Amino acid sequence: MGRRYDVISFLSDAGTTDESVGVAKAVIREIAPHVTVIDVTHGIAPFDVRAGSLALARAVPYLPSGIVLGVVDPGAGTSRRAVAIEVAGGEGVMVGPDNGLLAPAVRLAGGGERAVVLTNPEHLLAVGGTWSGRDIFAPAAAALCNGVDLGDLGAAVDVDELVPGLVPLPRQEGERIVGEVLWVDHYGNCQLNIGEAEIAELGERVEVSAGEVLRVAALVEAFDTLGPGAVGLLVDGSGMLTLVLARRSAAEELGVVAGDAVTLGPLTDGVRTPGTTSSVQLRPR
Amino acid sequence: MGRRYDVISFLSDAGTTDESVGVAKAVIREIAPHVTVIDVTHGIAPFDVRAGSLALARAVPYLPSGIVLGVVDPGAGTSRRAVAIEVAGGEGVMVGPDNGLLAPAVRLAGGGERAVVLTNPEHLLAVGGTWSGRDIFAPAAAALCNGVDLGDLGAAVDVDELVPGLVPLPRQEGERIVGEVLWVDHYGNCQLNIGEAEIAELGERVEVSAGEVLRVAALVEAFDTLGPGAVGLLVDGSGMLTLVLARRSAAEELGVVAGDAVTLGPLTDGVRTPGTTSSVQLRPR
Amino acid sequence: MGRRYDVISFLSDAGTTDESVGVAKAVIREIAPHVTVIDVTHGIAPFDVRAGSLALARAVPYLPSGIVLGVVDPGAGTSRRAVAIEVAGGEGVMVGPDNGLLAPAVRLAGGGERAVVLTNPEHLLAVGGTWSGRDIFAPAAAALCNGVDLGDLGAAVDVDELVPGLVPLPRQEGERIVGEVLWVDHYGNCQLNIGEAEIAELGERVEVSAGEVLRVAALVEAFDTLGPGAVGLLVDGSGMLTLVLARRSAAEELGVVAGDAVTLGPLTDGVRTPGTTSSVQLRPR
Repeated sequence: MGRRYDVISFLSDAGTTDESVGVAKAVIREIAPHVTVIDVTHGIAPFDVRAGSLALARAVPYLPSGIVLGVVDPGAGTSRRAVAIEVAGGEGVMVGPDNGLLAPAVRLAGGGERAVVLTNPEHLLAVGGTWSGRDIFAPAAAALCNGVDLGDLGAAVDVDELVPGLVPLPRQEGERIVGEVLWVDHYGNCQLNIGEAEIAELGERVEVSAGEVLRVAALVEAFDTLGPGAVGLLVDGSGMLTLVLARRSAAEELGVVAGDAVTLGPLTDGVRTPGTTSSVQLRPR
Repeated sequence: MGRRYDVISFLSDAGTTDESVGVAKAVIREIAPHVTVIDVTHGIAPFDVRAGSLALARAVPYLPSGIVLGVVDPGAGTSRRAVAIEVAGGEGVMVGPDNGLLAPAVRLAGGGERAVVLTNPEHLLAVGGTWSGRDIFAPAAAALCNGVDLGDLGAAVDVDELVPGLVPLPRQEGERIVGEVLWVDHYGNCQLNIGEAEIAELGERVEVSAGEVLRVAALVEAFDTLGPGAVGLLVDGSGMLTLVLARRSAAEELGVVAGDAVTLGPLTDGVRTPGTTSSVQLRPR
Repeated sequence: MGRRYDVISFLSDAGTTDESVGVAKAVIREIAPHVTVIDVTHGIAPFDVRAGSLALARAVPYLPSGIVLGVVDPGAGTSRRAVAIEVAGGEGVMVGPDNGLLAPAVRLAGGGERAVVLTNPEHLLAVGGTWSGRDIFAPAAAALCNGVDLGDLGAAVDVDELVPGLVPLPRQEGERIVGEVLWVDHYGNCQLNIGEAEIAELGERVEVSAGEVLRVAALVEAFDTLGPGAVGLLVDGSGMLTLVLARRSAAEELGVVAGDAVTLGPLTDGVRTPGTTSSVQLRPR
């Protein structure tokens, strides 16, 4: 039995304020000492499967060959399945709950080719514990690194029967496009589910409405080309349109959080000073 | 002088918002480049020796052989002793301040067999600094990994004279058991100092009182078997009873923090709808 | 092409609540698998170049030979230069934006000897992305670890033309010295830009004024030698005077944040009970 993989890229909603993640990494070390763990993030909001799936999808193009370990698992201990999904001819295996968390990453990696449910107690620490990261997913990931065959971890499951990921699609409404905030990053930038091509008709300035806030955003290529308080739209590191300000939080400025609707459209009279973007907010009573 | 240990499991209250922990790890790297550091957590509340000792005790059954480095050290620079305690025939050494932080972990590892005070300046960066993690404990831990004998770090100290850990015990009051919240985890689950056996007589539903909140909790095996808003009691990953909700924070719902008293007892008239657990809260004026 | 460096010490303001830092570390792993990344901290406040430069300067005396990767880069994507600066005869290279972030660390390491702008696309993932940590700085750092020569990363730049760091100097006002809070650490200790020698004339007790708060601070060597609520001044792990309390936050007690002015002087009648430090606060109306 050789050492098959030497990297586990680990994402969870378990935080780092207690020992949960540290203990899962200790379990990996104990089983497969040759493995390097890359912490993708453990800061996914508790129970937020969608946010976790989006973060994994953004990360996966950059992750090394090996195991992707994703644990956002509010259904731990119930009948939800724990799975491992092989992708890219065995170059990688994604390990986690079958609740949609892994689905977008699997699709980006070319789709699942083989999958099993993690039920073989020989490769788990415990079957029904509350911290499935420690008891089920970490030991299974480590076993794969040691060269254990996917098929030894449990019964095969049809990859077409795995729970799909749900990524919201924007919709066209006349000249306007209605999307939503996929992600507010650490700086307050608001990634939308809208690509650059979808606003190609709108020109260099776009009207942005989010809740009761109405603003004009300029298409820019860098944060610091914006004046103080001005809203910009740029294509972020994942290729999506993102609402930004220079050195300030766009999420605070626009009053939005992940999941909120945002509409982009041509300039209208609703925003009376399209030349500036710093002060116009219309708040209907 | 061989390489004796290759893992340091590191817990502290130093956080990761500044460079303190990074610098301690740089010190370890400089002295013992072959060592892997596992961050158990650095999110222990500042100065909270008890919380640190409980987290270490929960983690220690999963940690690899090697060094356990624990730094929650409000007495840094005073006469409190810095110690290293050998356990399990030398399979592990616990390094940290002698303030009770390490005591429960030492006991779980079978008890201290040999201990020294860390006073040999040859293996320290500085003797009386304010960040003892960097100046005293990290270099001592790294020296042990390099094969330095425990006895070379300083004078022997009787293991029976080390400061003990204080873990609160629950007490019986008639049919009721009065315990306390040991730990609120990242999800808001509230671990109690009460084991399952201690409520064996109470049946499948238990009355929970915490401050002015009175609720019924069902014994469950998984979070998601609870209805929305319902309180459950499950045996957590450490074997202790834990108050939980499905996909919500039990600590918020019950208004408790670590250290608060919680009483478990048989159902009484105080909770008038024992069949449901979602709405009954009695708040005396 | 040999393996030239095997450690990258990484500091940023990118936080760990999303995948940004994890992805940058994945990029390093992909390019230079032999490298260990030491996370100095990713908790620098967003966009706070000064705070990042101070944390790097505090850390750099403890960092191993190799690469220092610093990414606090509000000007990402603009004409600000991305640079690599060789120090100490090639023992180390500091990589980051040319905005002053690296300057104090470079000076502490003996000054820059050679520098280049990071423009060679062969060693970058992308030229103008928004997350320059991933696209520019991490790949350049990894390339250096693999033995790529500094000169291969881009055109040489005069080290004397790099943006300097700005560390505020205290000023004398009669018997008093006016400084500022450089850093509030995780425990609330307030590091000043004042050294011990600068208050040598003031004796063992010093009057501290910060905003409207006036207190007496005793010079101490350890937190726990202070009584409850008493303010102390100690020489911290970086050799600077630091305002502290025992097991409490001095920043909260004094109502200060990083950048606030603090004056140290001889005792005056303004503080009427110099023997105690626990209760005197004069707040003008």
